[in-house]
This record gives sequence, C-alpha cells and structure tokens, in this order.
Amino acid sequence: MKEILINPAQNTWEAIIQRPSLNFDVLRPAVSKILEDVKVNGDSALRKYALDFDAITLDEIKVTPEEIELAESQVPDALKSAIAIATRNIWKFHEAQVDKGINIETTEGITCWRKSVPIEKVGLYIPGGSAPLFSTLLMLGIPAVIAGCKEIVVCTPAGNNNIVPPAILYVAKLLGIDKIFKSGGSQAIAAMAYGTSSIPGVYKIFGPGNQYVTCAKQLVSLDGVAIDMPAGPSEIAIYADETSNPSFVASDLLSQAEHGRDSQVLVVSSSTALLENITKEIMHQVESLPRKTIALQSLHNSHFIVMENVEDAFRLLNMYAPEHLIIASDNANKLSDLVVNAGSVFIGHYSPESAGDYASGTNHTLPTNGYAKSYSGVSVDSFVKKITFQKITEAGLENIGDAVEAMAAAEGLEAHKRAVAIRREFTNKQ
Amino acid sequence: MKEILINPAQNTWEAIIQRPSLNFDVLRPAVSKILEDVKVNGDSALRKYALDFDAITLDEIKVTPEEIELAESQVPDALKSAIAIATRNIWKFHEAQVDKGINIETTEGITCWRKSVPIEKVGLYIPGGSAPLFSTLLMLGIPAVIAGCKEIVVCTPAGNNNIVPPAILYVAKLLGIDKIFKSGGSQAIAAMAYGTSSIPGVYKIFGPGNQYVTCAKQLVSLDGVAIDMPAGPSEIAIYADETSNPSFVASDLLSQAEHGRDSQVLVVSSSTALLENITKEIMHQVESLPRKTIALQSLHNSHFIVMENVEDAFRLLNMYAPEHLIIASDNANKLSDLVVNAGSVFIGHYSPESAGDYASGTNHTLPTNGYAKSYSGVSVDSFVKKITFQKITEAGLENIGDAVEAMAAAEGLEAHKRAVAIRREFTNKQ
Repeated sequence: MKEILINPAQNTWEAIIQRPSLNFDVLRPAVSKILEDVKVNGDSALRKYALDFDAITLDEIKVTPEEIELAESQVPDALKSAIAIATRNIWKFHEAQVDKGINIETTEGITCWRKSVPIEKVGLYIPGGSAPLFSTLLMLGIPAVIAGCKEIVVCTPAGNNNIVPPAILYVAKLLGIDKIFKSGGSQAIAAMAYGTSSIPGVYKIFGPGNQYVTCAKQLVSLDGVAIDMPAGPSEIAIYADETSNPSFVASDLLSQAEHGRDSQVLVVSSSTALLENITKEIMHQVESLPRKTIALQSLHNSHFIVMENVEDAFRLLNMYAPEHLIIASDNANKLSDLVVNAGSVFIGHYSPESAGDYASGTNHTLPTNGYAKSYSGVSVDSFVKKITFQKITEAGLENIGDAVEAMAAAEGLEAHKRAVAIRREFTNKQ
Repeated sequence: MKEILINPAQNTWEAIIQRPSLNFDVLRPAVSKILEDVKVNGDSALRKYALDFDAITLDEIKVTPEEIELAESQVPDALKSAIAIATRNIWKFHEAQVDKGINIETTEGITCWRKSVPIEKVGLYIPGGSAPLFSTLLMLGIPAVIAGCKEIVVCTPAGNNNIVPPAILYVAKLLGIDKIFKSGGSQAIAAMAYGTSSIPGVYKIFGPGNQYVTCAKQLVSLDGVAIDMPAGPSEIAIYADETSNPSFVASDLLSQAEHGRDSQVLVVSSSTALLENITKEIMHQVESLPRKTIALQSLHNSHFIVMENVEDAFRLLNMYAPEHLIIASDNANKLSDLVVNAGSVFIGHYSPESAGDYASGTNHTLPTNGYAKSYSGVSVDSFVKKITFQKITEAGLENIGDAVEAMAAAEGLEAHKRAVAIRREFTNKQ
C-alpha cells in the first residue's frame, strides 16, 4: 500500500488525484477495422469474431424463447426474490424521475412548452467476462422501459457452451425485453450502431465494457450514434472522520478494489490514526477474499490522505469528482452539502456502495474518470429527448415582432426578419 | 430547384433524406495539431493563430471593462429594447426548467434523492464571421446563469480592428458575464478545454461554429471535456397542407436557406399544387434578399415532397428528425402529437422559426443532422449534473441486506457482499 499523505499542499492535489490516462490512440485502428467490418459484413463478421476471439460457433445470434424459458428455471428462487426487491426499489426511484413537462406563456399570445419523448431505439450492452452482470441490465433496462423506448436491444457475449448467463435472460424477461443477442466486444457496439440482419441498429448505446468496448463507443459517437457517457475504470472515494467504523470503511474500499486491477480508491480522513486503523482492517479483510490478488493490485494505486481541515477535504474530493463517494461520518447529512462533483453519494455508516450497486434504488451507471464534473449518471432522462414546442397567435407575433425584426436585422439575417414581417403585413391588411 | 417528389415509396425515404456526410477525417490532423499547440504553448499559440488566420495582433486576449463600457454606448436603443424582450421570454421559459429534485423512500429506512448541481465551469463559443451572433450568447448565457454556473467563459473572435461586436459585449454585460476572450476557431475550443494563462479551462463547452470548431469540439470531447452536442449545418422541415399560406411557408424556407450554402430544407406537403405555389413564392421572395446567392445554393440541396397521406408525411419527417419543424396547418396542434423526432416544433401559421431563433423563449441551440433522434436542445439541464444520494439506516440495510448479498454472490463479487454483511453482523451483535 502507498504511504499516507498528510495535509498535502493544495498545489500538489492535481498530481495526487491524477488518474491513469485513458488513451485509445493505440486501440483505435484495430477497433475501427472491426467497426468497418461489421458495418459492411454484418452478421457474418459477428460470427467470425465470435469464432476468432471467443472460440464460439454462433449459429443463431438472437437468443430464442426456449433459451429464455430454460434460463428462468435455472435461476434459484432466492436470487429471484432478491431481483424482485431490487427491481421494486430501482423502479420506484426511477419512476419519480419521469418529466412532467413544462408549459409557459412567455408573452401574451406566445405559449412555449417542452415534453419528453422516448428515444425510439436504444441498445444496452451487458459485458460478459468474469461475472454475469445482470444488475447492469436492471440499471439500464428499468429506466428504458419507464421512459417508453419502443425498441430495446440487448447485446451480451455468450459464455462457454454458447450460453448467456441465466440471470441475465431472467432479468430481460422480467422487464419484457426479448431482443437479446449473443454478441460482445467492439463488434457488438458496431452491430447496434449500424444494424445487421439479426441486430437492429439503434440511436443510443448504453453500458459499460472493457477498453475495446469503450473505444468502440467513442468511435460510433463520432458517427451519428449517441452514447450514455464516456467510461473509465470504476472508482470510490471515502471521507472518514473519527465517528467512522474502520472495518466498514475497509469493506467498502475492498468492494471497489475487487472490481479490477485498474479500480481507483481514494480515502480522505480527518486523522492519521484512523487511516492506520483502516489500513490494518483492509489487510485483515483482504486475506480471505477470492479476488484478493486483484484487490491488492488496485489498492496499490490508491491514495490515503489525511486532511485535518474538513473544507479542504471536500475541496480535494470535489476536484477528484469520484464516481462513488461515501461520507462515513455522523455528520454526513450536513457534509453532503459540500459535494459539488460526484456521481452518487452514500450518506452515513450504513450506506455501503454495494447497496446502491444492486438494490437501494439509485442507478449504478455513473460517470467515472472525473466526468462527474460535467456528466450525470444514467436516469430516465438518458432515455428521452426533450422537444420544445411553441404556438404563437397573430397578437403574440405582434407583441414580439419588433424585437425579432430588430435582432435579425442586427445579425444581418434579412430573411429571418421577413418571415416575421410578411405575417405582420398580412394580419394588418385583414 | 429540385423536382417535386410525389408519394415516394417508403423504401426510398432513407435515400431522399440523406444529409451530406460530415466526415472530419480530413480535418482532424490539422485541428489536432492546433489543439496540441494551444495545450502546450497557451496564449502565445492563440496570438500566433490570430495573426496567421485573421491578421489580428492580439495584445490583450481578455476583453477589458473599458471595451465593454464603450460597447454599451454603441448599441442602439431599439436593439437594447429588443434584447430586453428576448431576455425576458428566454428567461421565463428556462427558469421553468429548473429541476426541483426528487426524494423517495424506496424501502423503509432507505431514502434516495437526486439534486441538480451546476457545472462549475462552462465555456460558451460565439462564432464570428459574417454576423455578430449575440442571440447565441443569450441562448447559452441565460440557462448558464439560471443553472448557477460559477465560472462562465465566453470565447468569440475579434473582427477587424480587433473589436468584438458591441451587441455581444452588451449581452454579456446584461447577463453579468465578464470573462470574454478574443479567440475564435479550433484554437478557442482548445483554450477552453485545456486552459491558458488568459483563458480558464472549463468542464463543458457549448456553442455552434464552422467545421473546424465542430471538429475541435469532437476531439476535446474524447479528451475529458464535455460538449453540448455534435453539430451539423442548420435545417428546417415544414409540413404544409391546404390551410397553409404559401408566402409564409416560402419566407420560413428562405430564413433557413440564408444561413449558409449547406443549410438543409425539406418541405412535405399534402398537394402538388400547394408545393408549386410555395416554389413560386420562393422564387419571388428570394429576388430581393441580400443573401440571395447563398439561399439559392442551399435551396438547390433541398427536397420538396408531396405526401397525400398525413401519417406517412409524419413518418418521413420523424425519420428525417429535423432541427426545426414547422407545422403550417390549422390542425397543427393535433398533428404535433405525431412528432417523435425533432429539435423544436413551431405550431401553426404565426409561429415562424425566426421567432424561436430570437425571442419567443425557446432555445435555438438544437440538434442537427438527425441527432434529434437521441439528443435534446440546450436547456438548463445542459448546465447541471444530477447527483444521486442515498441514506440507509441500520433497519433499512436489514430490509435489503439479503437481496444485496444474494445478488453480489451471484455476480461473484464477494467483497460487495461483505460490505453489507459486516454491517449487519455489527448491528446484530449490539
């Protein structure tokens, strides 16, 4: 583990919180080639990559109703109950996000309104790899369904034996999503961006993934398809003061650290003694973790900082802009007012990140890599666009007519001016 | 002008509405070089480009209080009144967009909430060129101020004599924005993305621009800075039926066509005779336009389509997903329910696009190039991020504890499970 930094000078903060740079320049040519191949050759390119990369012979790319039926019978009842609880909470919190629209008369005779309209076609990428991330399908699928997206496409790589993990298919069925395709990696992103015979093209692509997936999402975003947000490795920052429980804090750090070698962990504490206790607890708890090696590696990149001044602590945390921020303090509610940049904030001693990862109700698809300074996590908003409307009466146009004409003339746009003038002349002649 | 297409078969629609492709591959190397230069050499690179590209010797990059003072005295009173009316309406409509936040108890003991927090530092790019686009500063500045962004940076190129158009400085002063910098083109985008000695770096960059500006925004968006939206040439689509006034419709088409040679115009009409009348009116009105040449060129790329079936007409319009959509019909209110993809919709005969461009209250920074399928126009939302929070009590954690542990175990994330288990054990031991 790294040394503890004590009250580092403000001019060193930027260097301390520096994340590993995510430079995709090296990957881009290879990923571009895959995108182009899928764009041109569609399903046959997907089959080729499944064989080359994953040694899977993909006959049917779309998951069949029989496979979904079978999956349902394979998910243990306890997990089904757990998923039901998570679904209920996530649904409740996201349903409350539905935009009610606005409608304003800005001037007599001029009504402007705005309404949310679902994005018609969306693609959800669910990574495969070491764990079946059915929770990500809950986090992306529930707001998509609530928003009312008409076509929801799911791509996820099949594992060995050409099987999609049953829990993923079970969640899809629960949410009424039946367009599930066995495709992973950058080729799946290409398929959803451009469409193939099997996989419908979509207007916006969501979901996490490895660096190839992230690079592919970046590239298709330059090519007309929207994406949820740029992504980097998962991260947590914890503020711990003398009221915090070192074993709780250690458990939260480890739950982040086990994600991957590149996970980011930052602890800011009010005292050195507390940080030492947290460190001891980490070394104790990590011993029995199945993913001990991964956790230790990502802890090696972590930062442990003592900040005796609480305002400074939150200035540093805001500069870092963590994906997840736990405020492990009796005073957490009040301290949360100091948060300016974060994806999601966990208040107090009994709000571990894993509660939000699975079942409390908030979304776990959040901005990483400092993007919390400008991006929000996924919500129902992410699945709609807000269209504005305006209706102007003859009188309304008269009320702003001089203003519009003067501004258009000042910008040198005569035809803009005339579009108003021609109507006013017509009205006045009546 | 192009021939009129009558009830084109659905399988030809995609080809008809094809926009000119925006491929920045050719520009990217040159723009990348400029970005890198500004990143490394800061202000001195800005001065070099001002001299090389615009023949301007930039001593002071920041606009001085004296320049702002002087500008105020140069704006005619009539224009000041016009700007006041526009500001009032834009302010009213955007103030109504302020998010009130949500707060939900998803399960007993689990409270989840979400609040909007302003993006701290934003950059507004106001293009120079043929016209001083002070209206764009209203459209970007008002929501930024309402959102509460702390640092609002404006970059705009100085014209001849090293002067920023007075109306732009006047609007900035009106909105309380005093960080205005004389810098344009891709170098200005670089300056706001990376910061220079004069120009503060920001977290999100807004505003229209030429292809170099757009390409620069794309590139910095791959490098950690958010942007408002991808941009292409401005566009309008009009639905006109037998109740519409051909001279009004023609004036709206021309107000779009005068923007630039690459402007996109699409008219869908219920009858051939009506379209012919609109065409006649266009040829008549265009004659006396100062920007006649530009307008005629962009009309040459336009499409005139008869669709006798109104549902088909709106299917085609939704497939096109126009930035601006005028529904020139007595039945416009009802027809607007058929709109799925559009940036902003103008209802009825007295709602010309230019009203919305300047003063009705809606924003004129809207998705082009088909991005209305997945993007919204600029609003107060664009200047905030929505942070989620959760507070869980011991009892609350007990209520979802089994669910979280079961799901974490099923995803193979043992440390996630333990972060919950360790707290529950502690509670139960008390």
